[in-house]
Amino acid sequence: MGKHMFSAAERSAVYKAIFNRRDVRGEFLPDPVPDEVLGRVLNAAHHAPSVGFMQPWDFMIIRSTEVREEIHGLFNKAHAEAAEMFPEEKRETYRNLKLEGIMESPLNVVITCDRSRSGPVVIGRTHMEWMDLYSSVCAVQNFWLAARSEGLGVGWVSIMDPDALNKTLGLPESVVPIAYLCVGYVSKFHDKPELEKAGWLPRMPLDEVIHFDRWGEKGRDLDFLEKIRQQMN
Amino acid sequence: MGKHMFSAAERSAVYKAIFNRRDVRGEFLPDPVPDEVLGRVLNAAHHAPSVGFMQPWDFMIIRSTEVREEIHGLFNKAHAEAAEMFPEEKRETYRNLKLEGIMESPLNVVITCDRSRSGPVVIGRTHMEWMDLYSSVCAVQNFWLAARSEGLGVGWVSIMDPDALNKTLGLPESVVPIAYLCVGYVSKFHDKPELEKAGWLPRMPLDEVIHFDRWGEKGRDLDFLEKIRQQMN
Repeated sequence: MGKHMFSAAERSAVYKAIFNRRDVRGEFLPDPVPDEVLGRVLNAAHHAPSVGFMQPWDFMIIRSTEVREEIHGLFNKAHAEAAEMFPEEKRETYRNLKLEGIMESPLNVVITCDRSRSGPVVIGRTHMEWMDLYSSVCAVQNFWLAARSEGLGVGWVSIMDPDALNKTLGLPESVVPIAYLCVGYVSKFHDKPELEKAGWLPRMPLDEVIHFDRWGEKGRDLDFLEKIRQQMN
Repeated sequence: MGKHMFSAAERSAVYKAIFNRRDVRGEFLPDPVPDEVLGRVLNAAHHAPSVGFMQPWDFMIIRSTEVREEIHGLFNKAHAEAAEMFPEEKRETYRNLKLEGIMESPLNVVITCDRSRSGPVVIGRTHMEWMDLYSSVCAVQNFWLAARSEGLGVGWVSIMDPDALNKTLGLPESVVPIAYLCVGYVSKFHDKPELEKAGWLPRMPLDEVIHFDRWGEKGRDLDFLEKIRQQMN
């Protein structure tokens, strides 16, 4: 086995992080996150792939109660507006969902994208100008998985007016927020996503979202689909 | 240690995947990817976080030489156009970079986002309508890290006209491509990103992209920044 290979145990650990990562809202503990741990998780985010190696992200570490209260106010406003958008039969369920832990978590982290980083022409962004945004999203997912392996919960809050968020954070014009994250140790991790447990939507069968060669060609490799179905069970 | 904790060895394996993941272009081997392995990696992607649990992704498995040749043609056209956009002193360097492995890799995978999945009103997308795109990007990063732990290289190709790509893949109007990935076993993984090795751009020091509480507040926690600098070395 070459140096670049993973042992079976190492591979299992990667899948353990992937399958046990949760969007945490209601289980945050107030215990502080040690600097060393936060540093490791941020360094993992910083090693995400980025288009043209532009590393467009910044990381805002928000501990201030005042700033978090402002953000929490933005959430409350948007959350009330959102409830009105759902069909009446889902509205009450929506209102009862716990969707953020902005004040309960000891730490909020914002991952941003500076669209002007490294100049106007970027390798890989010449024909898809949104690629830098996607790089910052990859940093979010690295952050999330590294945090999970450290026993830290992360919750991504996206229910707020984006312009108001920019203003509260004081972002310059070239910078957009990608993810507002609540971060902290937790009392427990749910065994499944909370919206799945609550019956909001079911997990889709993996074999139903697989196509071969062109869109809609779904039955071309039935052996493969059967193997996938067995893995899911 | 609770059941939800990771051992030190498990944690190291997660960081190993994160720090040793590479964007692979020139090192693909023709060996086929076994169905079981591809199934595991796709299942990892399928367990990405998604806004409102909408799971907006589909996975297109492209083995057809004909389809890959069409895509490779799109790359060649866009790559030539892109070269002209760089300042003259960088143009020759750009032209000499190997930026894709569409034909050499045994397998291409497209991860898409179906913007209409689960209906028009989605929890968490009411105020940031792009959140479903970001969910599909999280699936890309899960795919990439799981692949790395399986010894598979992945290269993300974004140098092509997006409308032409939609047409070649036959995507319906509600579906957008998020990532065009080349996938396969490799002769080696580079120890650093190729654009860093080639001197195109340096890795940014992590402490330079950290802010405290509000944008631009960079020096508020010097102890923390010093610890981060030590970790990076």
